[in-house]
Amino acid sequence: MPYPDEFTGFQVNGPDTWLEFHKNEFKPKPFDDYDVDIKIEACGVCGSDVHTISGGWGEQHFPLAVGHEIVGTAIRVGPKVSLVKVGQRVGVGAQSYACLECRQCKNDNETYCRHQLDTYGAIWPATGTVMQGGYSSHVRTHEHWVFPIPAALSNTVAAPMLCAGLTAYSPLVRNGCGPGKKVGVVGLGGIGHFGVLFAKALGAEVWAISRTHAKEADARAMGADGFLATADKDWNVPHEMTFDLIVNTANSFEGFDINAYLSLLDVHAKWVSVGLPEDEEGIRVRNQTFLSNGCFFGSSHLGSRKETLEMLQLAADKGISTWVEEVKIGKEALAETLSKLHNNKVRYRFCLTGYEEEFGA
Amino acid sequence: MPYPDEFTGFQVNGPDTWLEFHKNEFKPKPFDDYDVDIKIEACGVCGSDVHTISGGWGEQHFPLAVGHEIVGTAIRVGPKVSLVKVGQRVGVGAQSYACLECRQCKNDNETYCRHQLDTYGAIWPATGTVMQGGYSSHVRTHEHWVFPIPAALSNTVAAPMLCAGLTAYSPLVRNGCGPGKKVGVVGLGGIGHFGVLFAKALGAEVWAISRTHAKEADARAMGADGFLATADKDWNVPHEMTFDLIVNTANSFEGFDINAYLSLLDVHAKWVSVGLPEDEEGIRVRNQTFLSNGCFFGSSHLGSRKETLEMLQLAADKGISTWVEEVKIGKEALAETLSKLHNNKVRYRFCLTGYEEEFGA
Repeated sequence: MPYPDEFTGFQVNGPDTWLEFHKNEFKPKPFDDYDVDIKIEACGVCGSDVHTISGGWGEQHFPLAVGHEIVGTAIRVGPKVSLVKVGQRVGVGAQSYACLECRQCKNDNETYCRHQLDTYGAIWPATGTVMQGGYSSHVRTHEHWVFPIPAALSNTVAAPMLCAGLTAYSPLVRNGCGPGKKVGVVGLGGIGHFGVLFAKALGAEVWAISRTHAKEADARAMGADGFLATADKDWNVPHEMTFDLIVNTANSFEGFDINAYLSLLDVHAKWVSVGLPEDEEGIRVRNQTFLSNGCFFGSSHLGSRKETLEMLQLAADKGISTWVEEVKIGKEALAETLSKLHNNKVRYRFCLTGYEEEFGA
Repeated sequence: MPYPDEFTGFQVNGPDTWLEFHKNEFKPKPFDDYDVDIKIEACGVCGSDVHTISGGWGEQHFPLAVGHEIVGTAIRVGPKVSLVKVGQRVGVGAQSYACLECRQCKNDNETYCRHQLDTYGAIWPATGTVMQGGYSSHVRTHEHWVFPIPAALSNTVAAPMLCAGLTAYSPLVRNGCGPGKKVGVVGLGGIGHFGVLFAKALGAEVWAISRTHAKEADARAMGADGFLATADKDWNVPHEMTFDLIVNTANSFEGFDINAYLSLLDVHAKWVSVGLPEDEEGIRVRNQTFLSNGCFFGSSHLGSRKETLEMLQLAADKGISTWVEEVKIGKEALAETLSKLHNNKVRYRFCLTGYEEEFGA
């Protein structure tokens, strides 16, 4: 296949004009022996995209095309690539580099490698190139972070799994989600909806936990066995010390009665947060906060290549279908879509398509 | 053996006069079928005793004799008692009741039973009796919380293990402390010194973590393989992501750079706090706080009967010796000892003896 030297993407110039997308050409990082060039066909729209370009996560490098739930076709592979073939349908998620030599990397913990780089916004060390994401014609990525997509999954079903899906899946499988376990998923946004879908597919009894009952019917349609609305009086009391795991996908601790949430956990069970709220405040905890059940409070970051492949296969085997709203990529469409996401007006994931119409065949 | 209907103890009348001990007779809770009456011979002096009588933990029931690291001789056993014999040397720790019927109790988690009662200060539900502790002639306790003491352990070595020792031991064994593991113990007080002793006895590589180097020689004498002083510049950097477990015995988060501490933990490793600080403030955390290594933050409460017996046997087998300062019980001695403990002037545990001289044979 022919492949370009420069890529084209919809870039933002900075947080003051974060809804103004400019269609620019940009030079990707140099093509290395293990790299794969991918012609993009679809890209999920992640909350990270909004946090990054709107300034919520602090200073970033601009101009920047975001997007890290990418599916497309491999059009060029480096001489040492063995995991991907030209012509194969593949995906790229939120991470695009780690050393692959440290103890973390060798233990399928490359997401916790101290040299890990994000798919967009990171500076490529050797050249100072600002890495560009999937609101673009192409992406160039080391094969370790390029994942073959099972035929059973369409582009728009698969793409959002590569960040939101994996973010939910990894803490579930790392913390024992499975038959006989009662698992809670707090927050029913893009990540949370995958939490319900995957926890159910893994065989657990799944409870969605949301502020109100507004999303109860959706949660049950996704497979939730139960639903708790924290606005209800004493909502937690009947379930105290019964949950084996809670994955918290909420994007803020605002208004959280953390004691009520943690009271749900069985002895030594875990609360794992996966959102990265913009606020600096966080939440105050005391040793006593965790005492009545000896529970644990932590966070999880993405997941490994191994988990990504397992997740995609599970989704293919079980027929898991992302709840997705498809949007054709373009300046106005991006502004409208990112604005809606900023205001939580999405059920449950936007996915960009129409790349060939926009960027050419 | 003869046994009394009333016991005698050194009671405090309230937090305003918490260093004034009054030698009073008191009526224990009714003697039940599973109860054991113990003639006390030694009692460790725990930080909890100070927190309780000085008002640091809020309102309490007075008059109150504290003390929950008790060793003595069983002088009377109820008709259904099968775990203890009259004449046997036994101990009682900080917990004296749980339902023994719930799921937690049946899983050796009686310390997390929702009906658990503390050895002193709790109200005995059936009669409203305020439970009295080990600064007393005798104690009456359900056999489940009465532990035979191995012959190899002297009274003053064994007594402090029953709260401080168990508090350190349980989170170690529940979180994988053993050969090939690198374990940190933060804070070198009564609990911390047991953390070092037991972690070493369990076969781990043990690092004591303290604010300064003042206690380094002691820590190494207890068996610590390494010592970190958090006042040293970049003290954490060479050890980032290398610890498998950290047990935090510090009594306050004041001045804590929690990010530096947590940076020590390997992927998904745990930070377990066992102190119960008086301050209401605690510490602010964000999801990001736990993100770089996906670590977990929690607390642990005492331990089970099973763990208590295993701990005492380990101590006997390995010749573990508590670092103890012996004090003969009495009004002035208690005032002086509790005052010293309040000011952290102890290395590393006070233990009261001289009960027969004070209370009679």
